[in-house]
Amino acid sequence: MPQMNPIVRYHAGQPPASDADELAVEEPLEIRIRGRAISVTMRTPGHDAELAAGFLLTEGIIAGPKDLIRVEPCAHDRIGNIVNVILNPAATVDFDRLTRHVFASSSCGLCGKATIEAVCQRVEPIESDAKIDAEVLLQLPQRLREAQATFNRTGALHGAAVFTTDGRLIVAREDVGRHNAVDKILGYGLMNGLLPFDRHVLLVSGRTSFEIMQKSLAGRIPIVAAVSAPSSLAVEFAQESGQTLIGFLREGRMNIYAGAQRVRFG
Amino acid sequence: MPQMNPIVRYHAGQPPASDADELAVEEPLEIRIRGRAISVTMRTPGHDAELAAGFLLTEGIIAGPKDLIRVEPCAHDRIGNIVNVILNPAATVDFDRLTRHVFASSSCGLCGKATIEAVCQRVEPIESDAKIDAEVLLQLPQRLREAQATFNRTGALHGAAVFTTDGRLIVAREDVGRHNAVDKILGYGLMNGLLPFDRHVLLVSGRTSFEIMQKSLAGRIPIVAAVSAPSSLAVEFAQESGQTLIGFLREGRMNIYAGAQRVRFG
Repeated sequence: MPQMNPIVRYHAGQPPASDADELAVEEPLEIRIRGRAISVTMRTPGHDAELAAGFLLTEGIIAGPKDLIRVEPCAHDRIGNIVNVILNPAATVDFDRLTRHVFASSSCGLCGKATIEAVCQRVEPIESDAKIDAEVLLQLPQRLREAQATFNRTGALHGAAVFTTDGRLIVAREDVGRHNAVDKILGYGLMNGLLPFDRHVLLVSGRTSFEIMQKSLAGRIPIVAAVSAPSSLAVEFAQESGQTLIGFLREGRMNIYAGAQRVRFG
Repeated sequence: MPQMNPIVRYHAGQPPASDADELAVEEPLEIRIRGRAISVTMRTPGHDAELAAGFLLTEGIIAGPKDLIRVEPCAHDRIGNIVNVILNPAATVDFDRLTRHVFASSSCGLCGKATIEAVCQRVEPIESDAKIDAEVLLQLPQRLREAQATFNRTGALHGAAVFTTDGRLIVAREDVGRHNAVDKILGYGLMNGLLPFDRHVLLVSGRTSFEIMQKSLAGRIPIVAAVSAPSSLAVEFAQESGQTLIGFLREGRMNIYAGAQRVRFG
């Protein structure tokens, strides 16, 4: 189910307006086998038993239907983000194969806690008084495209860039993995003595997820903007962290999902 | 650097033509600390030191520049997919935090091996003689969109669907995570006794990566099609696995990157 969220909608040349926008829901799912949390994956709720069964199959944990008895919601979990997988007692589980998708922090358990607390344990809120002009923001996607054009002609890579709040490009990187493009930017900052990026804006070419927000917070970036939509958990994260989160930044428009006080309108 | 790859290019109403297409490069990067592989991430080569430094920062492994002395290529690695991170001896590394992104199979090492062998250890090639008409393929994206429209209005979710080779929809799922949408489909198949999907085609709404190919192979799916581009490693995987891989399936066109013998042209 989509989730409605209050936003500030802005279209160049018009006053900003309060509105609401539907968000794609992103929440963690913890998969347990024999009482042990083996994976926490960020997913859209729904068909969770299928997701758990498919994950175990495609990761090579189970070989086929005979290994699986059933998938059931965790009885102690009131928010619906934990499933117990009941395997055939004869099935052997190679727990060593399971480290790939596991959040180290998952052992704290999601039962009875808000998901945002459980997955992200150390949100130190940002209190930056950085501000940016809406008109500057609107120019950034074009600058990212120009930076990408110089080293990529496939159009198949995610791009990310950090700018100062007056629109000066600090660094742009791209990668098949969106999170990698952001890591490269923050690694550049770290290796060149530029961190924290606390008077800066991060722009990503696609969508914003929980993971992008978490990474941007590690660089203390107060403003995150994206050409496409944020997930529900990205918005919750921004509200929690005090970051400004902007989506659908394109063609003279933007939606502001959190921290609108950092955007100055014409 | 993009990589050129021979393809079959098809446009409805015209004969298929041999051509070449640039691919976004996807390869694994193994990050080592104190001789220990702590992560293998699929990335686009370039700026690997930044990626490693940024990854360690954003995952909370290091606190800042003082913890990092340098990042250097592994001397024993001729293909450039391993970096050694030299940390300040005083820095404490919480290896328990590191499980999240680690491939369990990474301990086999990438040194001196082709990456495809190291990351994907168990490719059992598909020898399905399934075939599909190009005209059927061209209709599938619209059918996926129709299936998505019934349960999603945000436009922010990845969609995936499995069809029979005569175009009948078996199941469609969507998720903020592309890999989750594919897992849900395979979980549906497993829980309903429909596996293997060996006379079927998987369609994904976005790009195809190594991970999508690996998951589709676990369901023994012979044909994988996507609305957008494949990565270089997705194409290599398909060549290795004997799967048919189609990209840019939209507006009456498609590019066939591997296994073109399974596509019948009108």
